[in-house]
Amino acid sequence: MIITLTTDFGLTDPFVGAMKGVILSIAPSAQIVDISHNVPSFDIGEASIIIQDACQYFPVGTIHVVVVDPGVGSSRRPIACQVKSTGSVFLAPDNGVLSLVSDSTSARHITNTRFFHHPVSQTFHGRDIFAPAAAHLSLGEPFELLGPAAENIVQLPSLCNPAVLRVDKFGNLITNLRRGQLAAGFVIRANGIAIRRLLSSYSEAQPGEVFAIEGSSGLIELSINQSSAAERLNLGRGAEFEVETGTLNH
Amino acid sequence: MIITLTTDFGLTDPFVGAMKGVILSIAPSAQIVDISHNVPSFDIGEASIIIQDACQYFPVGTIHVVVVDPGVGSSRRPIACQVKSTGSVFLAPDNGVLSLVSDSTSARHITNTRFFHHPVSQTFHGRDIFAPAAAHLSLGEPFELLGPAAENIVQLPSLCNPAVLRVDKFGNLITNLRRGQLAAGFVIRANGIAIRRLLSSYSEAQPGEVFAIEGSSGLIELSINQSSAAERLNLGRGAEFEVETGTLNH
Amino acid sequence: MIITLTTDFGLTDPFVGAMKGVILSIAPSAQIVDISHNVPSFDIGEASIIIQDACQYFPVGTIHVVVVDPGVGSSRRPIACQVKSTGSVFLAPDNGVLSLVSDSTSARHITNTRFFHHPVSQTFHGRDIFAPAAAHLSLGEPFELLGPAAENIVQLPSLCNPAVLRVDKFGNLITNLRRGQLAAGFVIRANGIAIRRLLSSYSEAQPGEVFAIEGSSGLIELSINQSSAAERLNLGRGAEFEVETGTLNH
Repeated sequence: MIITLTTDFGLTDPFVGAMKGVILSIAPSAQIVDISHNVPSFDIGEASIIIQDACQYFPVGTIHVVVVDPGVGSSRRPIACQVKSTGSVFLAPDNGVLSLVSDSTSARHITNTRFFHHPVSQTFHGRDIFAPAAAHLSLGEPFELLGPAAENIVQLPSLCNPAVLRVDKFGNLITNLRRGQLAAGFVIRANGIAIRRLLSSYSEAQPGEVFAIEGSSGLIELSINQSSAAERLNLGRGAEFEVETGTLNH
Repeated sequence: MIITLTTDFGLTDPFVGAMKGVILSIAPSAQIVDISHNVPSFDIGEASIIIQDACQYFPVGTIHVVVVDPGVGSSRRPIACQVKSTGSVFLAPDNGVLSLVSDSTSARHITNTRFFHHPVSQTFHGRDIFAPAAAHLSLGEPFELLGPAAENIVQLPSLCNPAVLRVDKFGNLITNLRRGQLAAGFVIRANGIAIRRLLSSYSEAQPGEVFAIEGSSGLIELSINQSSAAERLNLGRGAEFEVETGTLNH
Repeated sequence: MIITLTTDFGLTDPFVGAMKGVILSIAPSAQIVDISHNVPSFDIGEASIIIQDACQYFPVGTIHVVVVDPGVGSSRRPIACQVKSTGSVFLAPDNGVLSLVSDSTSARHITNTRFFHHPVSQTFHGRDIFAPAAAHLSLGEPFELLGPAAENIVQLPSLCNPAVLRVDKFGNLITNLRRGQLAAGFVIRANGIAIRRLLSSYSEAQPGEVFAIEGSSGLIELSINQSSAAERLNLGRGAEFEVETGTLNH
């Protein structure tokens, strides 16, 4: 059974290793896959996008652990969400980090201490609650045993205006627009630069041209071939921009 | 069988990949877990703390390879230490990197060339000695066959005064103090700031407050909620500080 | 079956996780090993050296996926090269990234859409072509089914003069020289510094001395013990230098 990990723990400290040790102590044949441990510290929004993107490519029944947890030790709940159609499960703090994957899920408040690593610290629930609960689920423990049904899962506010969701390693600006929202004749205006072309591949671009492209996640990205659009446009996560002329259908 | 890796090799060069290739060539079903490859170059002390913390969460019988090895190719010995109570084994250069885990172990000087990857370089014993020896152990080769008993394992000097052991990714200052060493009414004085509160969770803190907390490793940490105590106090690894009023029992 | 991954995707974005999800969806028992995901963006030359170094340590039959792909979506071919002697396979864009491993291989142009992840994007062939093709091969699909034989595999130009191939994490300058090319009495002149000693291990060096050493990859490296020769000599990848006196046999 596959257990994926997405955290803001970095790869220097022993945090991720401790989580893996706890998982393998309970479920020796679990297959652990790292999605990302480089989420910026406490950045719930960034993590919510990363897990939403990555989880689509994993098999039915995969268990995803997502720990970006500024409220660890407070009253925020540890929760688990099970996707009804696929059986995939997400375990995370109830702080909005599952906003983009918690549709059509049934949720539980993780309270069953039988699934915890003891003693339970107030500073590292990734190791003491989420990792061991995931390991027990991977062994076939019923989802319902995690704890009582959880209602009112925290949702991050969704973006209304065209905006940058995140910037990838290559400097591509991943937006919240989809292809159908860019009608013929569109003009994207971002920091004084007008973007008028929607290309199919990076290699169609002129040298230095900023263009729009449907990225691998299905969202419109603002890009420069082999260069950083984020640097050129001087835009980062959350930055808004304008879309003119073409009909914008939200 | 689980083999963990802790090194200062980074994740850019092919060093870690080479070690994994050597392990899997000998023991195809070994389960390799990365603890950290981002130990600062040649920083034996940092590695000694990381492996001591992480190893507690792995099952009995786990094999830990620790390679921070400024003396590679010199007369420093490659050694293996087996924990008597659990059977877990640590393989490392004899330079103090196992200081915090080598109590109650029996040690061997790894000299049996049958367990080496040939030709043995003078610059990369991680690949040529430690990785293949770990792989052979994971297949059930007896610990005693690694080489003769080793005495006088190198120990790092231990800290006498209250000091910062390491700084984690979030800027928490992990100290060498334990909870019992902070008596009621304690005052920690670090770089002109007085710390008087021992909290149970980050979320109890006032905004911007520097406080003490029992961290996930059982050691006292100096922290700021969702901010870096290391930056605020301008302290790093090895920095000493004062503890007043409360009885300090070393 | 082992599948290794070498990319310039970094470990922050969900790219690598997506590739692993695709592989495990097809081949649940594949053993995935990361070689490096920190190749500098679009740096085909650096990736060609890393995979050539690392691949030597993996068992016969290993499948290596190498994705540094500035021309993704253009007419550059996705290819697979099978080493005749070992059966190991490399999958990569045909842009020179396999220059150092494609000798004595038979190559195929990967065109069989049955092995693709659909829909196939024009921006992420690592996920949509290379990862799934590798997964299918690991299940025993015949190499020949990938597509038609490919001729004229792109080769990077090889270096004629003594030069720095790459710089490792410790600041060692890995050159294109081999031991036999440094005759007795050699003098390497690099940025005004004369290097006259070929040492067997780092520990033989004087403090601060820049020396030559046969590195773990079998190539001559310019090094300083526990310090960065790259910083001291102010040299980087591609920098040329002179070798005098000793006979230089290219």
